Amino acid sequence: MKVGLITIGNELLSGFTIDTNSSWIGQALIEFGARISWHLTVKDDSSQINSGLDNTPKDCRIILITGGLGPTHDDITQNTLFEYYGIKPVFDKEYWELLNSRMKKRGRSLPEINKNQAIAAEDGKGRIIPNSFGTARGIHIFKNDIDIFAMPGVPKEMKNMMKDTVLPWIYNITKNKIHVNTLRTTGIMESSLAEKMRDIIEVSKNIEISFLPQFTGVDIRIMSSKKAPLDEAQRIINERIGKYIYGTGSDILESVVGKMLIEQNLTLSTAESCTGGLLGHRLTNTPGSSKYYLGGVNSYSNEMKINVINVKKKTLDMYGAVSKEVSIEMSKGVRKLLKSDIALSITGIAGPGGGTEDKPVGLVYITLIHNDIIINKEFTFFKDRLINKQLSSQVALNMIRIYLLNE
Amino acid sequence: MKVGLITIGNELLSGFTIDTNSSWIGQALIEFGARISWHLTVKDDSSQINSGLDNTPKDCRIILITGGLGPTHDDITQNTLFEYYGIKPVFDKEYWELLNSRMKKRGRSLPEINKNQAIAAEDGKGRIIPNSFGTARGIHIFKNDIDIFAMPGVPKEMKNMMKDTVLPWIYNITKNKIHVNTLRTTGIMESSLAEKMRDIIEVSKNIEISFLPQFTGVDIRIMSSKKAPLDEAQRIINERIGKYIYGTGSDILESVVGKMLIEQNLTLSTAESCTGGLLGHRLTNTPGSSKYYLGGVNSYSNEMKINVINVKKKTLDMYGAVSKEVSIEMSKGVRKLLKSDIALSITGIAGPGGGTEDKPVGLVYITLIHNDIIINKEFTFFKDRLINKQLSSQVALNMIRIYLLNE
Repeated sequence: MKVGLITIGNELLSGFTIDTNSSWIGQALIEFGARISWHLTVKDDSSQINSGLDNTPKDCRIILITGGLGPTHDDITQNTLFEYYGIKPVFDKEYWELLNSRMKKRGRSLPEINKNQAIAAEDGKGRIIPNSFGTARGIHIFKNDIDIFAMPGVPKEMKNMMKDTVLPWIYNITKNKIHVNTLRTTGIMESSLAEKMRDIIEVSKNIEISFLPQFTGVDIRIMSSKKAPLDEAQRIINERIGKYIYGTGSDILESVVGKMLIEQNLTLSTAESCTGGLLGHRLTNTPGSSKYYLGGVNSYSNEMKINVINVKKKTLDMYGAVSKEVSIEMSKGVRKLLKSDIALSITGIAGPGGGTEDKPVGLVYITLIHNDIIINKEFTFFKDRLINKQLSSQVALNMIRIYLLNE
Repeated sequence: MKVGLITIGNELLSGFTIDTNSSWIGQALIEFGARISWHLTVKDDSSQINSGLDNTPKDCRIILITGGLGPTHDDITQNTLFEYYGIKPVFDKEYWELLNSRMKKRGRSLPEINKNQAIAAEDGKGRIIPNSFGTARGIHIFKNDIDIFAMPGVPKEMKNMMKDTVLPWIYNITKNKIHVNTLRTTGIMESSLAEKMRDIIEVSKNIEISFLPQFTGVDIRIMSSKKAPLDEAQRIINERIGKYIYGTGSDILESVVGKMLIEQNLTLSTAESCTGGLLGHRLTNTPGSSKYYLGGVNSYSNEMKINVINVKKKTLDMYGAVSKEVSIEMSKGVRKLLKSDIALSITGIAGPGGGTEDKPVGLVYITLIHNDIIINKEFTFFKDRLINKQLSSQVALNMIRIYLLNE
């Protein structure tokens, strides 16, 4: 099923709002066998909206519209649609009274300007789409064998209408629930993944596989109209590259690691130099992280490394702060200080300055210590400070994941 | 000057790529007195591209096109444009040889498939737009009083072509350099800003003011075709709400604070509980932060608060970890441990769980200590863990900014 999308709003064209609605809608539709095949963004301007409706490709079975349903004079979407499709607007007294009584409860009164939010289509010409989070209702019009759904531009309200009304309606027509799964990988490049999975991608006719690379890892998206081939593909992929897969769907690495620590009843502490606290920040993004994360030190200065986590001045002098030796002493020191089971440390040159010929920008040492086990790795990442910090924290979390996997 | 934008690419419609190019282009154009007034996204499909060119509003003086200039069979933008505008393609032997010799230097050979990147327009029918970062060149066509600029979709390459070729070309036509400045505020709501600036907004005819609210603060954008009214508006705004303005343009709060610490020759340490390292992470996002940031502790557990930064067990027992008293002891403790001039601490309930009637989710205490001066503040933020962490770090950084301002 092909879908035309019209997003309405001056702020989208001026560039001061990044349009995240469209990509959300695009992804949501795919699961129901529908796809956006044409997307137009126009101003809050009725002639532009009319021209958009005129020019939507004829093979689009439905048109989704977002924006311009609020109470201000800019919000002209509903009136424009009524005129375009020859629908008489009627005043919905009941809804107006409901809005008023709601506001009264909060001790406020509703400005007259909101009256246009209580306008509905004449009987049989358009259905109201309820809004659980705001006052602007959506509208569903059927005309010339096309279904038109207009929704507010506020992401939360739009998403809710999609989930409650539009997607179930589409499913009812297509009976087509596409099975989609995302396998999240880290530690392997897109080209290597493609190489390892080439035969699956080429042979399988019932599944569609795509790679979505990011700096911190590659997501593998598998889609199929049937569940069996998807499960089978997933089984084979797991066999081949299972150790790179840390989760599915919207799993995040720090939560996956947290779950493993809880299962194995282990605690963790961190010592960070170049990441300055990012690893601790990520670990504590997961609710309940206090069960396993005891805390950490951001030992940014040499003095702090020496005085707080007992890195030897001699080691710093001999090997430098960015070295395997210091990284190991950082892990040992913080582990002892916090009495954690496991300790992770990161030291490196985040950049853009501070590199030398021997120790270039992007050089990072990461050490995991658990009891007598010491795992130390050296990496050379990029020239960009923020990317190097992100990558270092990702690799550190993945080191602990791999380690716990093999426990 | 009105601009039509056509972005081409299946990945933009499937929702797996968020289109950030368009908002960048929208913002860049505004400074040169041009605005996107219509934006269409289509698949890599020549009939859709043709229809887009047909339907671009007639008042658009130029059309910008991104995407579909790569070497693969999907990349059909250039051919489509040549056919649409009746331009004969010619093979650019010189460029093909240049590409080949470049690859040879890297010890590789260029696949035949790349030959379409060496196709150019016949003489006088289209100008090449050079690409400093990739092999795909852009093209500038002039036809029917409209200028068409086609560029690759890779953000870095597109941005470079805009800066080097398209924007100077637009300036040359409009001679219209709009003066734009962004004042970045934090600690004040959009509605209060609007209230305080109402007369400026209503009276001034030569300037345009808009508010861009985010969770961590509101940006005020001021635009004017002349420099004098913009400077005047900025002067008045500074008089009224100067203390909320931490920077201009793309300044970030952590860098502003860093600069002030360097100027006043002061060092800083941090003790974080609920933010888990985010404050340290932000402070170290600025290159050169080791000049003033000595480090910090993420004292997530009570044990760490007691053993490392000397918070008294009695204080924890009596007031709880999320309390003014513990926050003050955290700052005192980390300041002593790291021998910094200033210390900042954050303790709070990030949520979504862990709240009580007395201490709800979102309750946060922040303490700044410098010599004998102790500044402590209590906040109640929201229910969302990540937003509470972001806000806490923002408020902490702003506390130190305000303090240093008054020094």
